[in-house]
Amino acid sequence: MQDRLERVRADVQAELDRAIEVLPGGELTDAMRYALQGGKRLRAFLVMESAHLHGVGDAAALPVAAAVEALHAYSLVHDDLPAMDDDDLRRGQPTVHVRWSDATAILAGDALQTLAFGLLTDDRIGGAEARLRLIAALAQASGAQGMVWGQALDIAAETAGTPLDLAQITRLQGGKTGALIRFAATAGPLIAGDDPALLDDYADALGLAFQIADDILDVTGDEAVTGKRVGKDAGAGKATFVSLLGLPGAKAEARRLVEVSDAALCEYGASAGNLRALSRFVIERDT
Amino acid sequence: MQDRLERVRADVQAELDRAIEVLPGGELTDAMRYALQGGKRLRAFLVMESAHLHGVGDAAALPVAAAVEALHAYSLVHDDLPAMDDDDLRRGQPTVHVRWSDATAILAGDALQTLAFGLLTDDRIGGAEARLRLIAALAQASGAQGMVWGQALDIAAETAGTPLDLAQITRLQGGKTGALIRFAATAGPLIAGDDPALLDDYADALGLAFQIADDILDVTGDEAVTGKRVGKDAGAGKATFVSLLGLPGAKAEARRLVEVSDAALCEYGASAGNLRALSRFVIERDT
Repeated sequence: MQDRLERVRADVQAELDRAIEVLPGGELTDAMRYALQGGKRLRAFLVMESAHLHGVGDAAALPVAAAVEALHAYSLVHDDLPAMDDDDLRRGQPTVHVRWSDATAILAGDALQTLAFGLLTDDRIGGAEARLRLIAALAQASGAQGMVWGQALDIAAETAGTPLDLAQITRLQGGKTGALIRFAATAGPLIAGDDPALLDDYADALGLAFQIADDILDVTGDEAVTGKRVGKDAGAGKATFVSLLGLPGAKAEARRLVEVSDAALCEYGASAGNLRALSRFVIERDT
Repeated sequence: MQDRLERVRADVQAELDRAIEVLPGGELTDAMRYALQGGKRLRAFLVMESAHLHGVGDAAALPVAAAVEALHAYSLVHDDLPAMDDDDLRRGQPTVHVRWSDATAILAGDALQTLAFGLLTDDRIGGAEARLRLIAALAQASGAQGMVWGQALDIAAETAGTPLDLAQITRLQGGKTGALIRFAATAGPLIAGDDPALLDDYADALGLAFQIADDILDVTGDEAVTGKRVGKDAGAGKATFVSLLGLPGAKAEARRLVEVSDAALCEYGASAGNLRALSRFVIERDT
């Protein structure tokens, strides 16, 4: 799985570089290129593996993997803004608004979202119907019913100063990080025109495990390894899976969710080995 | 033409209201609904008229008209932010960040962009290929090669404090306002699979005339009528078509561009009457 992940990282970076190369140049293009560097590329990996499980080749899936990483990069650039989570470090580098300005970060994020939808029109992906299914699903996952909805709820809770309970945090994270992970994990069936139900269940458990692992890293992680600030949530008195379940409880819940994600993959048999390995990687990572 | 414009305004508002109604509610949805109120709806009108010229019915064109207005609304919400143009008044109302917060304005703009692409997947528009042509064209027009590129250039020029010359401003505005106007004006041929060349030429002249009229209104306009602050550009020492050509020169250039836009419509004959009337409206408006 690590070899495949390395390969996906290189391929998706090359695909994103090609998309940036044709832009006019200047500060906006520089900031977009910068925001597209690094990262674990777990969402791209999900796209490539779910495509593989549904008989979709790497060449067809690659623009979709690039699109989901462009969409993810836009969300990070905007979330890091002073008016939002106010982060100065991301992927081991100064955030876009620190390196350039708030205006450039807003515009680069805007253009990265546009780029994501543009990438999904690529005819290498497949027929027009397949591409439209992806575009409709990405709009659903990333907009006011999905990712942006979750982020708005997160900001509202922080502003109100009333910590959320477990059900509320689970629902919020289902939007903020879960919806895009679900899109990535179901890209294969969406392209092939197959039923995405099994991968939906896998993605829901994986997304939650991923978020719990993030909360654990915010407590136990090392900034030099994670490449982003740690200890922020506890410092802000924000409710997290760790503050609500305790550290051992959060770790146990993450392990339980990995079992759930495994069970969802049952019908795929041995061919889903990489997705099973990914679930374990997600809760054992130190970055 | 005024009757048709009124009708388009009502229809596109109803279409946008339907798209907002299904959202989860809360501050984000409220801010999106607020940002979608009012406006001249010239871009929606361009979509409906260019559709009419290419045999595309109103029902098919309406989601496209709503999409272009959602995209336009996102760009206004983000452009008005303190980190960008810092405007407190828009369409006669406090801007979104003044009414709520910078965070809500960033997120509402983000979700309005997503909504625009989502609306273009609507199967009322036509076949899958037609919808993909629109999505690819909107991504091209609104991203890092079009609208956002123009806005980034505008901010960079303001930050540098070096006023642009006429060729630079014309190029900048071709991106900032021209690209989306061109998308709207060519939506009809894009849906029908026809050649958009004639409407491209019309839109380029119209877009420039529109921007010159905007610059004139910034000097001669009344805030109570325009619904946005006036005198900002002159106050900021910013180069505009008026500062470069003088008021009479700018008015003459706008009139000349209306003639150019008229000439581009020649082959459409009498059926392009509303588009001809629109060009005149664009330079004679007081709002």
